[in-house]
Amino acid sequence: MDQGGRSERLADIGKAFFSPSSVAVIGASRSEGAVGHEIVRNLKNCGYTGKIFPINPKAEKILGLKCYHSLLDVEDNVELGIVAVPAEIVAEVAEDAGKRGVKGLIVISAGFKEIGIEGMEREADLLKICKRYNMRLLGPNCLGLINTYTPLNASFAPKMPSRGGIAFISQSGALCTAILDWAAEEEVGFSNIISLGNMADMDETDFMELLAEDPMTKVILIYLEGIKDGRRFLEISPKVTRKKPVVILKSGVSDAGARAAASHTGSIAGSGVAYDAAFRKCGVLRAKSIEELFNLGIAFSSQPIPKGRSVVIITNAGGPSIVAADACSQHNLKMAWLSPGTIDSLRQGLPEEASWTNPVDILGDALADRYKFALETVLSDRFVDSAVVILTPQAMTQPIETAKQIVTIKSKFPEKPILAVFMGGERVREAIKILKKAGIPVYPHPEKAVSTLSGIIEYGEILNRRIDESFPTFDVDRESVRRIIERVKRERRVNLLSVEARQIVQAYGIPVPPSELAQDVRQAVEAANRIGYPLAMKIVSPQILHKTDIGGVKLNLKSEEEVVKAFNEIMRNANLFMPEARIFGVEVQKMVPVGREVIVGMNRDIQFGPLIMFGLGGIYVNILKDVSFRLAPISTQEAYEMITETKSYALLRGVRGEKSADINAITDTILRISQLSMDFKEIAEIDINPLFVYEDNKGVLALDVKITIM
Amino acid sequence: MDQGGRSERLADIGKAFFSPSSVAVIGASRSEGAVGHEIVRNLKNCGYTGKIFPINPKAEKILGLKCYHSLLDVEDNVELGIVAVPAEIVAEVAEDAGKRGVKGLIVISAGFKEIGIEGMEREADLLKICKRYNMRLLGPNCLGLINTYTPLNASFAPKMPSRGGIAFISQSGALCTAILDWAAEEEVGFSNIISLGNMADMDETDFMELLAEDPMTKVILIYLEGIKDGRRFLEISPKVTRKKPVVILKSGVSDAGARAAASHTGSIAGSGVAYDAAFRKCGVLRAKSIEELFNLGIAFSSQPIPKGRSVVIITNAGGPSIVAADACSQHNLKMAWLSPGTIDSLRQGLPEEASWTNPVDILGDALADRYKFALETVLSDRFVDSAVVILTPQAMTQPIETAKQIVTIKSKFPEKPILAVFMGGERVREAIKILKKAGIPVYPHPEKAVSTLSGIIEYGEILNRRIDESFPTFDVDRESVRRIIERVKRERRVNLLSVEARQIVQAYGIPVPPSELAQDVRQAVEAANRIGYPLAMKIVSPQILHKTDIGGVKLNLKSEEEVVKAFNEIMRNANLFMPEARIFGVEVQKMVPVGREVIVGMNRDIQFGPLIMFGLGGIYVNILKDVSFRLAPISTQEAYEMITETKSYALLRGVRGEKSADINAITDTILRISQLSMDFKEIAEIDINPLFVYEDNKGVLALDVKITIM
Repeated sequence: MDQGGRSERLADIGKAFFSPSSVAVIGASRSEGAVGHEIVRNLKNCGYTGKIFPINPKAEKILGLKCYHSLLDVEDNVELGIVAVPAEIVAEVAEDAGKRGVKGLIVISAGFKEIGIEGMEREADLLKICKRYNMRLLGPNCLGLINTYTPLNASFAPKMPSRGGIAFISQSGALCTAILDWAAEEEVGFSNIISLGNMADMDETDFMELLAEDPMTKVILIYLEGIKDGRRFLEISPKVTRKKPVVILKSGVSDAGARAAASHTGSIAGSGVAYDAAFRKCGVLRAKSIEELFNLGIAFSSQPIPKGRSVVIITNAGGPSIVAADACSQHNLKMAWLSPGTIDSLRQGLPEEASWTNPVDILGDALADRYKFALETVLSDRFVDSAVVILTPQAMTQPIETAKQIVTIKSKFPEKPILAVFMGGERVREAIKILKKAGIPVYPHPEKAVSTLSGIIEYGEILNRRIDESFPTFDVDRESVRRIIERVKRERRVNLLSVEARQIVQAYGIPVPPSELAQDVRQAVEAANRIGYPLAMKIVSPQILHKTDIGGVKLNLKSEEEVVKAFNEIMRNANLFMPEARIFGVEVQKMVPVGREVIVGMNRDIQFGPLIMFGLGGIYVNILKDVSFRLAPISTQEAYEMITETKSYALLRGVRGEKSADINAITDTILRISQLSMDFKEIAEIDINPLFVYEDNKGVLALDVKITIM
Repeated sequence: MDQGGRSERLADIGKAFFSPSSVAVIGASRSEGAVGHEIVRNLKNCGYTGKIFPINPKAEKILGLKCYHSLLDVEDNVELGIVAVPAEIVAEVAEDAGKRGVKGLIVISAGFKEIGIEGMEREADLLKICKRYNMRLLGPNCLGLINTYTPLNASFAPKMPSRGGIAFISQSGALCTAILDWAAEEEVGFSNIISLGNMADMDETDFMELLAEDPMTKVILIYLEGIKDGRRFLEISPKVTRKKPVVILKSGVSDAGARAAASHTGSIAGSGVAYDAAFRKCGVLRAKSIEELFNLGIAFSSQPIPKGRSVVIITNAGGPSIVAADACSQHNLKMAWLSPGTIDSLRQGLPEEASWTNPVDILGDALADRYKFALETVLSDRFVDSAVVILTPQAMTQPIETAKQIVTIKSKFPEKPILAVFMGGERVREAIKILKKAGIPVYPHPEKAVSTLSGIIEYGEILNRRIDESFPTFDVDRESVRRIIERVKRERRVNLLSVEARQIVQAYGIPVPPSELAQDVRQAVEAANRIGYPLAMKIVSPQILHKTDIGGVKLNLKSEEEVVKAFNEIMRNANLFMPEARIFGVEVQKMVPVGREVIVGMNRDIQFGPLIMFGLGGIYVNILKDVSFRLAPISTQEAYEMITETKSYALLRGVRGEKSADINAITDTILRISQLSMDFKEIAEIDINPLFVYEDNKGVLALDVKITIM
């Protein structure tokens, strides 16, 4: 489909669900309390200005609206259908809707996938019908959706939240209900609330895509238990996050990733890591709690994205400002260095005992005007990117007047976020309402203000970070790899021999120590003379995993005689200790100088595809877990970041006067493994451990390579 | 002082501050709004039943009470004095109070240490007077204190909180004010609120000690910016935490520990680590935020300490229970395995679609009686230690009735904590009030409930953990160490030579490779023959730090000839490259087999004394920071914990079939370093890095030892 057609189609779907010209409620009911009644009432009462068609074969009128016996009886065009009939007849209703040209269908009814096999079949049938008529489906088993600007309450939730910039998409209906109740009390404004239900058709990614185009939506919050289509999420969400912030609370982290893994990379990747990597790649922020999710929503919907990490704290009390400064340090925010001019102004305008460096302590007797003066002065400083204003209710404190002053100042500095911390109870209650109403986020403690601010700042950095989106491709020997994999498949093996694994990475341009497979003594000697001494020799057999234990490894061989002796001994040992093993031969390998040991690996995630790992190698991998992850394909910048964000980077740069390791060669290796993983979907896992890294410009060598295919 | 006298004296101080029979307010005022007026009014209005003596040279009556011109005019006994006169005359007032036999003095007045040098002198004078009269002092520059049970409001804060089990001690007055305002709104009950002010005399430790004896105080919360007397804190607080939980929010973590350190241990110890170690040693819980501090306070004041980590979750919605289960996993709590009998009962009593394993999902249509049934059933299970009950306000949900049921059930299971999560706004508001009133902690989101529960559980473990409180002492050669340190001091050196450092640890029974100092070739050869080959030789000079760089190290010497040659070369190189260096000679050292590398070190904290570190050694120390800390003196159990809590413990136990390292020998080394640090206060820092650890029963060797003294 061409781009124009696609965006047109998107607009159509968005209109059908968010601002349809007409809505039919199939299963409308006259009985108060019934879902089919509540939906009609909500539609009628919410201020919706389109046409409403209640459908009920037994009723003539519902809530004063003309009732139709069937969808097919409606003469007008029906854009959105809301279904609240028993599960057994939903398919029939969907057929009617399809015939009637309905564009969007919200199925509230339960009794589908969530009840087991019978329901799964029912859901599959429903989806088939919708696809046939090119009709998009929300649900089944959902609460419906709400758009406050149309306005449209296509749900059975009685309350509409007030208007605001937050869109909330939830895989939990109960969470929608709780949030609606909370939002009413806290006066938090929403643009849309969407309950996804079973996601038979439309999922979080579809709605993210639609809401990216919604001008009233400033921020998208998602409660997510699992992603339906990881690759599509990776494709769509980066486009969305370039337009507006997306914050996701991913639950179910504890039992995820239980799949057994053969590689280090697989066993470390485990739970949650793939989601983290996916969110990072897509510029999605990850909330650590429900509270954080909505704190970020509120802040994003009212505050600008600051230019940088410099924060100023204004306070009328020492203790809370120390707590705030601690939180800044913890979140890696920078306590702004005020410019000399600002400090001078503060010195002149504040009492002598005040602190005119950051945190700016304007003392316990500060009235509203002193807050105004201090806040205006610091926000005028170009080294200040954002402000946290702390108020504790002391004897003379004027919470309400101070709140009003903050509101006035906000409009003068539209590009700098202001977050308020008003501590206490009754004495600050009214002031807090004033701040909230005017779009100043306000918190009962400093820590929450700072952690929320750090989220906004992070999004600003995500927007700026996107410089390198090119994924380098190397000229590689794809054909050799294809042949090896085909052979392994033919032989129904899953774990590649180390010789094969090394050949594969070598074909992708990753250097390995010169090595050859010898099947008899003559071949071994020839190989040895070609490669040069000193040499190592190792038994090659898919059955022998612990080669050293059975005497299958000989090191530091320096002559033809030693090679002959070693070959015979290895073979004898193998036959002695593992008589059943299938022996492919003996590997003759050049002994290479020891380098710094790192690991580069890949584990194919079921949802998101190849997850590439870099880290400290050798025996430390599993224990110290000093590793980093990115999803393939990987850009040069990402590969570099993977290296620099590990603690071991300090080791690679060189400690105590050591020379730096060849970082470029590691970057190169990561990128080649990324390419290999993208080219061959059959490869399930790769471990290069250790990858020996030598001094700058001296490259790397893949010492030990493990590959499994599926 | 004997134990009886001490506790008698404690009781006297406690009575003077918390329930005095009479109080004088010096600086009482007739003007409303003046601090001296507010205090009298607060005393009068709070329900205090003792005598109140306002003191004001110019007034006859204040608020209907007879006013005295001077403290000396009061005929009755005065137990507590509250001072609100200008700073300049506080000393004079204190003199009068002392003469009058006042036992406790609260100085509200500001103008002391906090304003600079002049104030510092004033504070020192005040303290001197108090000491002279054996009168204890709270403040100056504080809000005063409140005891709700006496009742006594000896502060200028207008509101008394309601009665409860929380005592709050704060180094920030503003935080007290904010908390008082918040507590009134949230109906959180307190036993005591104490504003410490400048802590000229009494500090957090003194009040902790007093509150340990207060039967109404169930939990002690402290906001702490810095500790005045670390050693006293280490002595007193463990006694307090054995009686009741102490939770501390320590602020100012960001700029602490800025002292330059010469050792690895010192540079890693840095900020916050000493406080962490001190709190752990004393059984104090550390709150990460103001919110967590008070959440723990509320929970401890109403909930029992559970027997173990098994938590059950009951919910009417899937999403929030997944979030709760995630939080349990994050806090390392155990999702209780319900016994077969419990599961059977649930299966019979709950609808078919319910989940009768943990989390127990009783479905969206659950009424109060279903909550009652489920909660009673699971709490009767002896494998369940505590319960989190989640409610989301769905169509049929009965928040109020459910809250009442929970309250009833709580009394049937007094030994198992119940925490509630009631999500939403208006629909759960009343229910939340009912729960709070009945002492069921209630949270708007699951994460807070779980993190609070984990704090209670941690305290239970602290109470159980205390089995080993013996600090082993070894038979050591103290005299040799004393002689070395004295010599170094005489020579005005700070960094010990490596020979000296090794001699010191050897004197304390830590094995070092055999080594001798040789001042000429003849001595070198004799030493070599005594020690045996192969050998290493190293230049010894306080000026030469990078020995290898100047050719001052020779390794793997195998004969007399090689030793002679090496000695001459080392000396020649030293004279060539470092002609100014003072050369002590050449160290002749046995070459030893390579072991696993760990570090054992000590850094003397200004507040808490010797902080012992264990961790992964070699070049990894500073980069991977896989280390653990304890304060000396260290028990055998603590030493063992230090090892097992590092990630590297897995390496020491042996990976991939390796043999275990000699853990006992490491424990022994840690304990000996602890003893050395306790014995010699002059030792500022110790680093044994690497300490070579060999296989089990094969011991350790201190390869490189650095010691600095002060």
